[in-house]
Amino acid sequence: MHFPILLYRGEQFNANFYYFSKCDIDHAFLLIEETSKTLLVPKLNEALAREQFDGKVIVYEAIETLKKELKGRKIFIDGSATSMRLFEKLGEFCKPKDISAELNAIRAIKKEEEVVKIEKAAKITKKILDSVDFAKMRTENDVKKVLLIETLEMGCEPAFEPIVATDRNSSFPHYRSGDVKLGDSLLIDYAVKYEHYCADLTRCFFLNNSIENKKREENYNSLIEITKKIVANLKNFKTGKDVAFCSEKLIKEYRLPKLIHAIGHGIGLEVHESPKLGKKSKDRIARSALAIEPAIYFKDYGLRYEETIYFDGKIARIL
Amino acid sequence: MHFPILLYRGEQFNANFYYFSKCDIDHAFLLIEETSKTLLVPKLNEALAREQFDGKVIVYEAIETLKKELKGRKIFIDGSATSMRLFEKLGEFCKPKDISAELNAIRAIKKEEEVVKIEKAAKITKKILDSVDFAKMRTENDVKKVLLIETLEMGCEPAFEPIVATDRNSSFPHYRSGDVKLGDSLLIDYAVKYEHYCADLTRCFFLNNSIENKKREENYNSLIEITKKIVANLKNFKTGKDVAFCSEKLIKEYRLPKLIHAIGHGIGLEVHESPKLGKKSKDRIARSALAIEPAIYFKDYGLRYEETIYFDGKIARIL
Repeated sequence: MHFPILLYRGEQFNANFYYFSKCDIDHAFLLIEETSKTLLVPKLNEALAREQFDGKVIVYEAIETLKKELKGRKIFIDGSATSMRLFEKLGEFCKPKDISAELNAIRAIKKEEEVVKIEKAAKITKKILDSVDFAKMRTENDVKKVLLIETLEMGCEPAFEPIVATDRNSSFPHYRSGDVKLGDSLLIDYAVKYEHYCADLTRCFFLNNSIENKKREENYNSLIEITKKIVANLKNFKTGKDVAFCSEKLIKEYRLPKLIHAIGHGIGLEVHESPKLGKKSKDRIARSALAIEPAIYFKDYGLRYEETIYFDGKIARIL
Repeated sequence: MHFPILLYRGEQFNANFYYFSKCDIDHAFLLIEETSKTLLVPKLNEALAREQFDGKVIVYEAIETLKKELKGRKIFIDGSATSMRLFEKLGEFCKPKDISAELNAIRAIKKEEEVVKIEKAAKITKKILDSVDFAKMRTENDVKKVLLIETLEMGCEPAFEPIVATDRNSSFPHYRSGDVKLGDSLLIDYAVKYEHYCADLTRCFFLNNSIENKKREENYNSLIEITKKIVANLKNFKTGKDVAFCSEKLIKEYRLPKLIHAIGHGIGLEVHESPKLGKKSKDRIARSALAIEPAIYFKDYGLRYEETIYFDGKIARIL
């Protein structure tokens, strides 16, 4: 690893900042040297930082304080989470260099306590999805509301805004939800976050015995089978690329239309993180948490099935 | 205004992207030329973009598609919301320049329909805060849960994670909440978002008739008076600096300790946006929505009062 690393958590949660500082304080810089960690915070967060951060705390007065610490040095930053403005400001007195790829690779390998939290998030989400009778709900937004309220009742937070899509709306992979009456089928892509760790699940529900649903259920069962086969095959794979090629082959075998998005993604403090599961991805998958989500999209409906998985390098396990 | 402007909405909501595109699609670039707007989206969002965006839609294959449109040109970007990585990638084939200050200045001036939404957010938040009997709740997290559930029941979303702090915890301005039993006093800094527009409110509640609370209530009433005086004085001010100096004077008059954060901030699609209300701010305040939040912090407790305001240039009105 390279030092010093400078991470910034502004208005939004920053996964790398949280991972390395073990705290979540806004407008704070984390400076990681080889043998020490320092948190630089604005005056208003000083007392909170001293309470929550296990290391040195400095109050910063604008960018000048950083200048004192870093002048003339080569520093390593998270180029995906550092704004161009901050990058240019830092560039005035030191030499910032992007190491986001290295940071993401570190976080891609999950520690046992991280897997426990992701599993808890997955299990709680499944409990919520099992406990609601969606056929009795009126609109997509009603379903969304119930999911979010149940999440709070479980003492969790949403990992992301739920996708609740009926019929034609489910043909848009990243549709969210609207005041739309539920029709024949319902796609829910949602999960909770447990102590900052995310799961990611998708289920389809068939709300009646219509002819439309017969074909849809058949296709959906194929997606479930494909997911299970991918999970069973993971032990033979090394990189994200391997997973992508295997998925493509399986989808072809089932005579389903080609995927219009990746077969899945790494998951953890962020819903989408390393390893990547695209055809060009050389990211290693051992000891990673993954979401696997085969899907098909037609003009009048879409279907997706998604599980959150942990692959210890030998066995892949649905969480 | 300068053209072309290139805005990017990745995983997170991006206020400028939403403001200029009138839609909220992930992983999308908005290219604004003098007479046209184009949305560049990944394949999986194509159908959704055609449905929701009123302009040309192009599917992008990685950064190559942008290269075709922008090669060799000077382009204007939002330097606060563009990552250093994207900035460097763009820099390989065009000349990106930061115009975040100009974009923020445009959004600082609120249109009538924006004020309506901010006011709605403020009114709904007040309704929620009025409807809950906080003295009957057990812990900070219980209060947080009730606030969030009420928000969903009202068909809204939280504008930000609630700050729910009792006694000593309220001495940290940006404390969030914990499994902590409610003590003598309770500070709640929270608001809902209505159709993407945020309010921002803080109230303190005194949960019993303890001697501690007598002094706290007295101080709290001073903060309410100070807020009202600032609001009444806005008509005499032009810039954020004027508001900051007036506030400092008032806080001194009331013999309260000096503020350790700004007296407030602009508000709209983001909880914190232009105009800035610091002592160096030359941002104009006419036709802006503002949050005004005088506060005091002691070792064992803190107090803050906050209102969301619209100042049309002549009269300031509490929303």
